[in-house]
Amino acid sequence: MAKIYMDNAATTKVDDEVLKEMTPYFNEKYANASSVHEFGQEAKNALEKARKVVAKAIGAKTTEIFFTSGGTEGNNFVLKGLAFSNYPGKTHIITTKIEHDSILSTCKWLSEHTAQVAYLNVDKEGFVSLNELEKAITDKTFLVSVIHGNNEIGTLQDIESIGKICKKKGVLFHTDACQSFTKVHLDVRKMNIDLMTLNSHKIHGPKGAGAVYIKEGINATPLLHGGGHERGYRSGTENVSGVVGFAKAVEVGEKKYVRQMEELRNYFISEGLKIKGAHLNGPREKRLCNNINIRFDNVDAEALGGYLENERIYTSTGSACASHTHHSSHVLKALGLNQDQISSSIRVSISKYTTKQELDFVLEKLKKTVEKLSKWGV
Amino acid sequence: MAKIYMDNAATTKVDDEVLKEMTPYFNEKYANASSVHEFGQEAKNALEKARKVVAKAIGAKTTEIFFTSGGTEGNNFVLKGLAFSNYPGKTHIITTKIEHDSILSTCKWLSEHTAQVAYLNVDKEGFVSLNELEKAITDKTFLVSVIHGNNEIGTLQDIESIGKICKKKGVLFHTDACQSFTKVHLDVRKMNIDLMTLNSHKIHGPKGAGAVYIKEGINATPLLHGGGHERGYRSGTENVSGVVGFAKAVEVGEKKYVRQMEELRNYFISEGLKIKGAHLNGPREKRLCNNINIRFDNVDAEALGGYLENERIYTSTGSACASHTHHSSHVLKALGLNQDQISSSIRVSISKYTTKQELDFVLEKLKKTVEKLSKWGV
Repeated sequence: MAKIYMDNAATTKVDDEVLKEMTPYFNEKYANASSVHEFGQEAKNALEKARKVVAKAIGAKTTEIFFTSGGTEGNNFVLKGLAFSNYPGKTHIITTKIEHDSILSTCKWLSEHTAQVAYLNVDKEGFVSLNELEKAITDKTFLVSVIHGNNEIGTLQDIESIGKICKKKGVLFHTDACQSFTKVHLDVRKMNIDLMTLNSHKIHGPKGAGAVYIKEGINATPLLHGGGHERGYRSGTENVSGVVGFAKAVEVGEKKYVRQMEELRNYFISEGLKIKGAHLNGPREKRLCNNINIRFDNVDAEALGGYLENERIYTSTGSACASHTHHSSHVLKALGLNQDQISSSIRVSISKYTTKQELDFVLEKLKKTVEKLSKWGV
Repeated sequence: MAKIYMDNAATTKVDDEVLKEMTPYFNEKYANASSVHEFGQEAKNALEKARKVVAKAIGAKTTEIFFTSGGTEGNNFVLKGLAFSNYPGKTHIITTKIEHDSILSTCKWLSEHTAQVAYLNVDKEGFVSLNELEKAITDKTFLVSVIHGNNEIGTLQDIESIGKICKKKGVLFHTDACQSFTKVHLDVRKMNIDLMTLNSHKIHGPKGAGAVYIKEGINATPLLHGGGHERGYRSGTENVSGVVGFAKAVEVGEKKYVRQMEELRNYFISEGLKIKGAHLNGPREKRLCNNINIRFDNVDAEALGGYLENERIYTSTGSACASHTHHSSHVLKALGLNQDQISSSIRVSISKYTTKQELDFVLEKLKKTVEKLSKWGV
């Protein structure tokens, strides 16, 4: 029985082309990109080529891209870096109740020290109110940080309008685009984005690589001090194979698969909602092309996930990143769902490799299992 | 003409066995190690197996090992993590003048904010004085951080005695063992080490992976906040392939090559010192098995490196990590060398792959080039 991987929001398979591209940087072109000799410069050139690819994909300059070890580092760097560089002049951050843990935990830590943090509400589909955002900005605010595509419910915020408000009010705008990158067209200039977090392993690149975009002229205190790599913004020996793989993942991309994934997502949602007691979490439109999050009345989603796992179908009942804290989903809670509704929610996240045959198999098992479990209750 | 890579202190070639071990974690066993399903647990098991290997190699418990993205992150995490968790009770750090940039830059940043930092002198071979160290400890000191094997001159500090002093005085002892790991036997209990930084790419593992050892009971504020990975100490999706590669590098190791490298190093030093105007930087004994650092009177080492590069011999005139700042070596300066002597110093760092034939070729070219360049002067 073949594996059916429906947890692509947690992480993705590395694309074969990506792996092929990065492999020589392990044992052939393995020099340190900061070594001044030509063997080092070969690695350096690969790094700079990758930087161009990432910059171009979001409409940024190459000098505005700084490679990191991934999304969590990127989010920590942006929030702490700006908190330190703005202190004590400005100390206020605005974010939302549906951010990734790496934003929320960092905000919590900052708020225990020097910062005040406002957490915006979202409506029942997960959208922030532009009106509430505008009102929340004070003369102490240095940053608004709003996730672009939500990792649990797929809601795509109107970041262009958020960017416009931030620009008008003279505060910086950061978006965590780890889930939406390559799935939605991003243009940092057009969308008034000042800072953005990207990562590799959500887009069929390797784990351990990512980037932040920081608009030129913005001063952020480094999170990693040291030899002055990445133009002084992020020290540490450059992970050349990881960065090369990341850029290749951007290149081979998912762009041409977005429509395909949207169709499969819509099909799954339509069919899934026919199952008894089914409700969609998050919106029908303005949703990540690969995200499905459904709850079933009186069904314990943990048990549901377990039954599906017996069929080698791998789904999720929450963010993989939250599995350590065992908290119930703060995202679903922010939508106004009660504990029973949260406990009956399951996330199915597809990829460019997902087929209709797989979805039909999952739907069949889902229907059967939900019918069985709904007799037991949550 | 084959490449002769003599810059193994900057980074190393990934061992073929290491690459083989890590490859399946890109596109077969690619799940998120924090996903609770069995596919995720497969990755989690690999991570925990790797943790055992690293822990065992230094005599630590598995619960004392926290994976990072590398040495720079590890050093930042230890210094900042302890500075934050000890503030405002204790604010004093003791380190040395010959640390890696990731220690010195972090100390500089901390000292601009909440910390006071004492920088110990070293003698002309790079050794710290135990007496000076003991005197420097105050009732405000929370940490002593001393590099084990120096990355430029190879000096191996007597960390067991340093650990003993720290234990007696009741302050924590951290050592940056990125260069010495697998080359010198490390036992954190026997050596009274409380915290240690390790990395992968200096020991034939992949770039972008590393670990810190933190003795149980020590409270360090995370550098990367988020989903609570690594038992809350270091969030971020685990770089499974990187960690698996790191552990394999520890396993296949260099232990059995240490004697071989020492013999080649001694041979190179003996022969190298026969060249006109040659002087060794750093000690003859108590030196990293792969490090050679020599200066030649009236020779510009940058030019020397360039000539060697024409022969496809890759050496270094300083730490790769310092190439961004273009400062002349703070390590050589701390030995008491003047600017001319620093500018005439070259680092040759070998590996388990280095052969005597390669060294003979390098020595031949070195001799010829030094003779030519010494007529021109620095």
